[in-house]
Amino acid sequence: MKIEPRTLKGFRDFLPDEARKRQYVIDTLKRVFESYGFEPLETPALEYAQVLTGKYGDEGDKLMYRFKDNGDRDVALRYDQTVPLARVVAQYKDKLPMPFKRYQIQNVWRAENTQRGRYREFLQCDIDTVGSKSINADVEIINCISDCLTELKFENFKILINDRAVFQNLPKEAVITIDKLKKLGEEAVIKELTDKGVDEKVLSDIKNAKPTPTVNSILEKNDKVIFEPTLARGLEYYTGLIIEVEVEGYLAGSVVGGGRFDELVGIFADQAIPAVGAAFGFDRIIEALNELGLFPDDLATTKALVLNINGSEMIVDETAKKLRSNGINSEIYLDSNVEKAKQFAYAEKKNIPYTIAVGENNTYTLGWKDEDGKINKSESLTFENLLEQLRK
Amino acid sequence: MKIEPRTLKGFRDFLPDEARKRQYVIDTLKRVFESYGFEPLETPALEYAQVLTGKYGDEGDKLMYRFKDNGDRDVALRYDQTVPLARVVAQYKDKLPMPFKRYQIQNVWRAENTQRGRYREFLQCDIDTVGSKSINADVEIINCISDCLTELKFENFKILINDRAVFQNLPKEAVITIDKLKKLGEEAVIKELTDKGVDEKVLSDIKNAKPTPTVNSILEKNDKVIFEPTLARGLEYYTGLIIEVEVEGYLAGSVVGGGRFDELVGIFADQAIPAVGAAFGFDRIIEALNELGLFPDDLATTKALVLNINGSEMIVDETAKKLRSNGINSEIYLDSNVEKAKQFAYAEKKNIPYTIAVGENNTYTLGWKDEDGKINKSESLTFENLLEQLRK
Repeated sequence: MKIEPRTLKGFRDFLPDEARKRQYVIDTLKRVFESYGFEPLETPALEYAQVLTGKYGDEGDKLMYRFKDNGDRDVALRYDQTVPLARVVAQYKDKLPMPFKRYQIQNVWRAENTQRGRYREFLQCDIDTVGSKSINADVEIINCISDCLTELKFENFKILINDRAVFQNLPKEAVITIDKLKKLGEEAVIKELTDKGVDEKVLSDIKNAKPTPTVNSILEKNDKVIFEPTLARGLEYYTGLIIEVEVEGYLAGSVVGGGRFDELVGIFADQAIPAVGAAFGFDRIIEALNELGLFPDDLATTKALVLNINGSEMIVDETAKKLRSNGINSEIYLDSNVEKAKQFAYAEKKNIPYTIAVGENNTYTLGWKDEDGKINKSESLTFENLLEQLRK
Repeated sequence: MKIEPRTLKGFRDFLPDEARKRQYVIDTLKRVFESYGFEPLETPALEYAQVLTGKYGDEGDKLMYRFKDNGDRDVALRYDQTVPLARVVAQYKDKLPMPFKRYQIQNVWRAENTQRGRYREFLQCDIDTVGSKSINADVEIINCISDCLTELKFENFKILINDRAVFQNLPKEAVITIDKLKKLGEEAVIKELTDKGVDEKVLSDIKNAKPTPTVNSILEKNDKVIFEPTLARGLEYYTGLIIEVEVEGYLAGSVVGGGRFDELVGIFADQAIPAVGAAFGFDRIIEALNELGLFPDDLATTKALVLNINGSEMIVDETAKKLRSNGINSEIYLDSNVEKAKQFAYAEKKNIPYTIAVGENNTYTLGWKDEDGKINKSESLTFENLLEQLRK
């Protein structure tokens, strides 16, 4: 029986062009994370279900990939990276430095209804500082987010922040409604407040709220930061600082969210453990970089294809080897006796910018693309000039 | 109810020190893979069970993590990366360049009996060239393996190769027995051959077999390669070249395996598709690098901890920022009013090699570890001298 080659709904293959873009974003984020002293952590894809259930609300338990393994253990796939972090902090408490600053970049699985931009397997990128109540930890998260987005070449972004304390005298229902301001608009929010029997004046009160000391300390230190007193990001999670990042020109939603959550990380330990962190919306960042045209042009892995024509294959091989040892990613056209046009087509399909034909007397003919993306231009060079050209 | 923080048997957390080592190996392999024009591919963790079952023998089907998802679909976790590759090749055949050279570095899951060095979740690192029958493709795989191990600083390794053609006139049972030579020794193999009614002479015949043309072409091109005519690596998989790599001084087993398998990748397509590739044994490579002491000393992410003492925290923050913008990974000690000894202990626990105390008049006191690993030595420097020291 022939099996149809297909993927599950909400799951994706990443072919090289997409995989490279993902890799570029991951590498950039990691570099910045590490420049601040965040260290890598990896946790298993599968956990005892007991470790995960009951931590994400009823909705979370429903969307979890949960099953019995071959040993009849009740197991579940990673649903986020924060609960595993909490487990790690309790399980290895004597081994970890405190504060523990870690980053984690792994897939999570959620059986969501699929829709634009929502998948069942997706990458999460988190930084968190565990074990410090200092405002310095909050500031550092903000600065790190700011540096990440700058390194990714986003120019116009806003780091909206708020402090949970802004809502302290408000009924819970009012906050839930005000949190929808961006999505629903002012009129609808006022209507919902009134329907709930809340004085609509609370909205203007909140909009005019003064920055708390926490917010002020942060505002002073980063000019991308804007105080947004209506920002709540739910009510269950954050206990102090609340963060949400918007990129100008990208309308699908915030690209980073985060804040201080002093009540979650201690769940497996015998004590409360303060924490502050941020989650980068990986798929949204990819989408925003695509839409704004911010991916570098030269993400292709191979710089030059050494053509397999006429002469000795040994020389073709040696040329690629010499280029590689000079730091130029180079491949040879593998099959022998293939017409040149087909070899060019291979380079074009693979987005390889240059071809090299090895000639006699140590000359090399470098080919490159014309405006139509066809390899159509060429120049005869010595090896030194060739290298110089490829390094440009 | 308090939930015990624990992981499933055969599943591992990687705390920063281990995660960094893994990252170093992955980065090194990727760099070499890409220098040869292998491109990244990612496939989903979950597949329709139908795509995976029946491809790995009865044993494979038994060890697969397979379950019904919330939509009652029969699904299974990735068991290797070759069957997903075969699916991808069939599913996107018009989009992919041919030959298709991809690398894939993702976790796989197998419900094995756990034992030393055997896990239920582990990383696979594969390179494969799909769609070329050329011996150049075989040679390239060998050269790429060789460069990878050299870049990882392995000095003495042997790339054992054989050609399936060496066994062509032998009964299957004889090959299965001869394949055990390394594990069982000559005497036991001869006994097993005799028990099976095979003339023991086949062993010496195989040992004296002459290299095939395929083997000869490869031997010429890489001096790490040794012809090993008794090497089979099973019988079901490889159709031509067979590869196995041994590292001197590391006895737990081969660190890379591979070869040509012209009958697998076409399973979802309507045609046979030739392929040659190699799988790097990631956990063994990590173990071998550990045992042989080959990991670089400076894998720690943070180079300097700026101490949070006396003076203005603003200056502490600015110093770390200036270091970062000069390419030095730097963190600040977050909590205020903490005694110096505790800050040093943090640096020691996190393997941060340097501490910096910001003094008055733009002087910086650099601290570093003595022979006992305690931060105990220091020198007062200007910022320029500080940078120079940290860059060494």
